[in-house]
Amino acid sequence: MGKEDKKEDKKELGIKVKKEDDLSEWYSEVVLKAGMADYAPIRGFMIIKPDAYAVWERIQGYFNNILKKKGVKNAYFPLLIPDSFFKREAEHAEGFAPELAYMQGSEEGEKLALRPTSETIMYDAYSKWIRSWRDLPLKINQWCNVIRWEVKQTKPFIRTREFLWQEGHCVFANEQEAIENMEEIIREYEKMMIELLAIPVITGKKSEAEKFPGARTTMTIEALMPDGKALQCGTSHNLGNEFAKAFKVLFRGKDEKEYYAYQTSWGFSTRLIGAIIMVHGDDKGLVLPPRIAENKAVIVPILFDDSRDKVMKKAREIVKKLEKFNVVLDDREGYSPGWKFNEWELKGIPLRIEIGPKDLAAKKVTIVRRDNGKKEQVSEGKIVERVEEILEEIQRDMYAKAEKFLHSKIDEAKTLKELEKKLKERKIVKVYMKNDKKVEGELKDKTGGATSRIIEDVVKEGKCVVCGENVKTIGYVAKGY
Amino acid sequence: MGKEDKKEDKKELGIKVKKEDDLSEWYSEVVLKAGMADYAPIRGFMIIKPDAYAVWERIQGYFNNILKKKGVKNAYFPLLIPDSFFKREAEHAEGFAPELAYMQGSEEGEKLALRPTSETIMYDAYSKWIRSWRDLPLKINQWCNVIRWEVKQTKPFIRTREFLWQEGHCVFANEQEAIENMEEIIREYEKMMIELLAIPVITGKKSEAEKFPGARTTMTIEALMPDGKALQCGTSHNLGNEFAKAFKVLFRGKDEKEYYAYQTSWGFSTRLIGAIIMVHGDDKGLVLPPRIAENKAVIVPILFDDSRDKVMKKAREIVKKLEKFNVVLDDREGYSPGWKFNEWELKGIPLRIEIGPKDLAAKKVTIVRRDNGKKEQVSEGKIVERVEEILEEIQRDMYAKAEKFLHSKIDEAKTLKELEKKLKERKIVKVYMKNDKKVEGELKDKTGGATSRIIEDVVKEGKCVVCGENVKTIGYVAKGY
Repeated sequence: MGKEDKKEDKKELGIKVKKEDDLSEWYSEVVLKAGMADYAPIRGFMIIKPDAYAVWERIQGYFNNILKKKGVKNAYFPLLIPDSFFKREAEHAEGFAPELAYMQGSEEGEKLALRPTSETIMYDAYSKWIRSWRDLPLKINQWCNVIRWEVKQTKPFIRTREFLWQEGHCVFANEQEAIENMEEIIREYEKMMIELLAIPVITGKKSEAEKFPGARTTMTIEALMPDGKALQCGTSHNLGNEFAKAFKVLFRGKDEKEYYAYQTSWGFSTRLIGAIIMVHGDDKGLVLPPRIAENKAVIVPILFDDSRDKVMKKAREIVKKLEKFNVVLDDREGYSPGWKFNEWELKGIPLRIEIGPKDLAAKKVTIVRRDNGKKEQVSEGKIVERVEEILEEIQRDMYAKAEKFLHSKIDEAKTLKELEKKLKERKIVKVYMKNDKKVEGELKDKTGGATSRIIEDVVKEGKCVVCGENVKTIGYVAKGY
Repeated sequence: MGKEDKKEDKKELGIKVKKEDDLSEWYSEVVLKAGMADYAPIRGFMIIKPDAYAVWERIQGYFNNILKKKGVKNAYFPLLIPDSFFKREAEHAEGFAPELAYMQGSEEGEKLALRPTSETIMYDAYSKWIRSWRDLPLKINQWCNVIRWEVKQTKPFIRTREFLWQEGHCVFANEQEAIENMEEIIREYEKMMIELLAIPVITGKKSEAEKFPGARTTMTIEALMPDGKALQCGTSHNLGNEFAKAFKVLFRGKDEKEYYAYQTSWGFSTRLIGAIIMVHGDDKGLVLPPRIAENKAVIVPILFDDSRDKVMKKAREIVKKLEKFNVVLDDREGYSPGWKFNEWELKGIPLRIEIGPKDLAAKKVTIVRRDNGKKEQVSEGKIVERVEEILEEIQRDMYAKAEKFLHSKIDEAKTLKELEKKLKERKIVKVYMKNDKKVEGELKDKTGGATSRIIEDVVKEGKCVVCGENVKTIGYVAKGY
């Protein structure tokens, strides 16, 4: 949208649909109007616009630090994968077949798929690279685009036919190390959600029906959206040695014998940007957690003809003072302060700093929080310190609010009927259920699409809400995105 | 290659072919043995291994800083582009048609191409985003993978069917700004080559025959490889308003009238990694310029049973002291120091620091430069300062050496015969030539594939070596990669 147009039609800036009334419509409006994404000419694809890409870069920066500490190295494997590779691991093949997109034509008689995930092409290489126990552990990650030809309705960031992600693929000499790696990574994901994105998650194992095709165990972090649907935000898999068998990832042990290696894979995607929008946004638009915001604050000078120069001078001084917060100075002419306020609220910048002639006289500025609208006057001398504090407060408050919401929405049910009732109340519902594909299929049918987002082993036995058998597993049931 | 195997067959580490004898063979050996890349299961594709990807990340970090300073924002556009988009700009369509790869099937009746470059899909979006002069300049860059179905022989990094790159796409209100942008970016590329990669380049304009399909002007940076072939390392294009016309990128001026916008695009790719290998490598393997090396030095402790603990303790102290240089401590057991020396030389790490019992007694360490093998003893107290200095010296010396080589290889010729002779001497040869597609075609035929890498306007007239006409343009002629 051109600025000219914004100027001419100020109402265009506003979000027309209330978040509470129609989350899906509200979401689309915010994504487009806040300039996070645009639809691509091809159905199911999106353009990630600069403001959203900047969020992705901050996530990348954060996670690259984690990777470095854990000795994981970045690399890049080809986009195109021989079709036969997918057929080597049976579950994996079955799981991904419906979403595979292919290149036109073939190469040396072989169809080429566009990567939906890179286990197969990476492990083919690993089988050549790994010879002995000395080569283990091998820990590689890649940041790349993947293509999954979704048949479901797409939604920018949340579900698109192409998305960006990181996929980590590690190899170990024994399963214990693989399990530890799976767990340590899911904990890092959880920590990132909480500390960086201010989004609380439920962390645990996926059921047999919901785990990654080819994995022995999948761990997941699940966030709850305002409509009661769960959003899978990242997964970490213990692949056992099934892929190793399929791809001949073998190593010679210290005893000179050959063994199959144990593997993990784990990933999160640009979907996280969608989670931020959905969890934190409000009826004015986006609300970015300070730690993820590239620009922590915007300065909007309140300009009158007789004090313009003085106010602008002061504004520029403050921009300099606040350098480490990467502050934007909105000195555009031809826009009223009110219009600017609206635009920056729409874009979710954490703080707005107003400076007018009165503030100037009082040697103060007015700081307004995006998350709750609270205003305060801060004396110029304390501005750096106070901005720092307020940003921390916002980050904390945003997390606390989201956490309160999540906890208020976790409930339990003893019967299928009760489960259905609570799902309608937009809740994530704990029920005894058998960890079994058939049972989960029935659950899905009977609830109009809900699944276990996580399955938990418990000590105390209870009756499966679907099959009535006594089981020691509790599912966290919700519909998913 | 597994370490076990290295241990068993020490000779495997060595580069068998001399750089001078067969550059192409030598290059393949270095790429594989130094662990920079591996061949992919599909012909023409490569796996970028961690050590090479780390180089790419340093280049990205450097250039992202430049982009930020210039107000260019990163974004991400879809991999798949409707075929019809390519047909809108005639020259562009013709230029890219032979290399386009398509998805199997079609979407809403349209064939989908895998992006070879993103002008078309980006400018389609720009036409919607830009409304008035207030929206200009628009400056967007993306880091992504591209697919070009090369028919020529491929070579890791240098020419592959998939590669990683950055492509910047800017829009301006007038052509002067576009020209300035094209020029400022090519100067930044040149600076990056010199300062970061220690590779001298020749910078200038491409001829009519060699410019980017759809561009009004293409500027290029050309590096000279040891075999006398030029390597185009980055290009920057003034697209005029041709694409703007094809994609309806219009803006309303201050006078309320509508105008076509002026555009630039510019890019460099993972090919730069190939340039580093080819320019700086030697018969022992890779030689990384210090500024591009992730680890600036390796410490190899010289271990004997009676002094092992003391030496290791000191080695660890020094690693800490040299923290900012991201030093590797090679404490692997079961490998001789000599074997380790060879391996780190192969990998091109700029400095090797040896610590043995004698050094310990003298409170010194031995530092060995990778680029020229020069050894020196440095007292422990001065190690940080001296490492810093030596790294700077290496960076400077590597550039100076490459520059000397380049200048020794620039020559000139008056006739086609003389040109051919000098091309055989692996030179880049300045000749008067007409800036004309037909003339360049003849030049190519008659020299077995040489082209003008750059064409320069000059004041003094001379005879075109091909057509004999008097012209005021000088071509820098060489074969290219």
